[in-house]
Amino acid sequence: MSSPRTQTYAQRAAKNPNAAARALLEVIERKKSNLCVSVDVTKRDEFLNIIDTVGPYVCLIKTHVDIIEDFDLSVIEYLKELSAKHDFLIFEDRKFADIGNTVALQYSGGVHKIASWSHITNAHPVPGPSIITGLASVGKPLGRGLLLLAEMSTKGSLATGAYTEEAVRMARAHRDFVFGFIAQRRMDGVGATDTDDVADEDFLILTPGVGLDSRGDAMGQQYRTPKEVVTESGCDVIIVGRGIYGKGGSVDVQAVQAQAERYRKEGWAAYLERIGQAPS
Amino acid sequence: MSSPRTQTYAQRAAKNPNAAARALLEVIERKKSNLCVSVDVTKRDEFLNIIDTVGPYVCLIKTHVDIIEDFDLSVIEYLKELSAKHDFLIFEDRKFADIGNTVALQYSGGVHKIASWSHITNAHPVPGPSIITGLASVGKPLGRGLLLLAEMSTKGSLATGAYTEEAVRMARAHRDFVFGFIAQRRMDGVGATDTDDVADEDFLILTPGVGLDSRGDAMGQQYRTPKEVVTESGCDVIIVGRGIYGKGGSVDVQAVQAQAERYRKEGWAAYLERIGQAPS
Repeated sequence: MSSPRTQTYAQRAAKNPNAAARALLEVIERKKSNLCVSVDVTKRDEFLNIIDTVGPYVCLIKTHVDIIEDFDLSVIEYLKELSAKHDFLIFEDRKFADIGNTVALQYSGGVHKIASWSHITNAHPVPGPSIITGLASVGKPLGRGLLLLAEMSTKGSLATGAYTEEAVRMARAHRDFVFGFIAQRRMDGVGATDTDDVADEDFLILTPGVGLDSRGDAMGQQYRTPKEVVTESGCDVIIVGRGIYGKGGSVDVQAVQAQAERYRKEGWAAYLERIGQAPS
Repeated sequence: MSSPRTQTYAQRAAKNPNAAARALLEVIERKKSNLCVSVDVTKRDEFLNIIDTVGPYVCLIKTHVDIIEDFDLSVIEYLKELSAKHDFLIFEDRKFADIGNTVALQYSGGVHKIASWSHITNAHPVPGPSIITGLASVGKPLGRGLLLLAEMSTKGSLATGAYTEEAVRMARAHRDFVFGFIAQRRMDGVGATDTDDVADEDFLILTPGVGLDSRGDAMGQQYRTPKEVVTESGCDVIIVGRGIYGKGGSVDVQAVQAQAERYRKEGWAAYLERIGQAPS
């Protein structure tokens, strides 16, 4: 079996056991975009404007709905309409981190009802496997998928070494629901023992901290280019935020679309280089 | 310096560098209660009814406001009124787990505006120290306090060994905001190096999984008695949920008050035994 690094997104879609992962790989192929835009703004109008603006260029929109001050369920209705209009999936970056019973309630209920609209969400592995079974009890019947945080790029992160390996083992034991990681590198085979059959393993890697114009910021964030992330490290989806829509306030539609297209094109070229195809 | 184990809550209040910790220790002493009730229900009326019922018996109410389906800001107004009426503090068990910029927005904003009403909240140390500085930028000016999750009692938890030690070191470096842990044992001096002055260290320990009637449940939760937790392990606050208000639905006021008083009395007796005083 060839590595996921040298397969097309479409080839990998055909084999993935998780419905949300298949849908994501298919939309990536269909739109020739491995770009996810992270929309971290606090007003609903700006939130929806940015998404409507970048929608044509992305495979995925990453949200933090719990920072939107004027949130109500109409935000979700609009978001779902935009998802259909522009053909992208939604990833609520909730970073669940509680025991199974609690995360099941947080995922399904409250005012945000995340499971009802977010195709993908994520969780920290720190509570152990019960966080996966708790979320899966809600998300699997809805065809959702889960990412684990196997690493974090922040300074002094505790998600390293044995922690990362254990996170990958937890994912490996729940491949029908956990389809990948938020990480900076491929995780296939990490932490595997001799008895694990990992020849066919294909975890999707979604990677934040991608930038074309800056190597870092004052808060210690490090940026890597799409080529470094996709071609060299073999990651699958680049996550970009303020690099595309700027400091916020009003949305300059043409400027934001130009940036989104620039990142889409760079991300796709990096993927074509990785699989050994010339850009068309 | 004597260990926190043998000092009264009032003695410890006088020396704590964090305002929320001092307020908590003072209310514990005033009400002779080290009982925190965890109110994990999904309807606002039941949520507020339980809190009004157990309020006289507790030092602290632990909430998950993100599971309340019919939440709006009036829930917070009522909760604040009940906090004043019954003299208890509020602890939103949010388990923040993101980078500094994001947790600052999640803590201050969104529909829940946690920092504006929750005296205490908690966070996972996994992102590294930036999660503390992000939350402190919001919470310190408001006199709030933070607990870290240094351990979890769930099966397969990754918060063990070096992870736990690093969590305590992060807390030690931010003692004006981080005043303790969610844990099953004392953490004073854990992970300290020769150059750390920990003689005077006093982290408050709030402990879930306390029960008087059962040793465990079908979901793998283990229960310990107040005596085991407070007298033997030296923890400071016992957290009890369904053991006090049952399976939910309607609230049987007399039965719930009897259970709350029973846990308050057991928790306080365990504390008096620990400090070597006879119950009065």
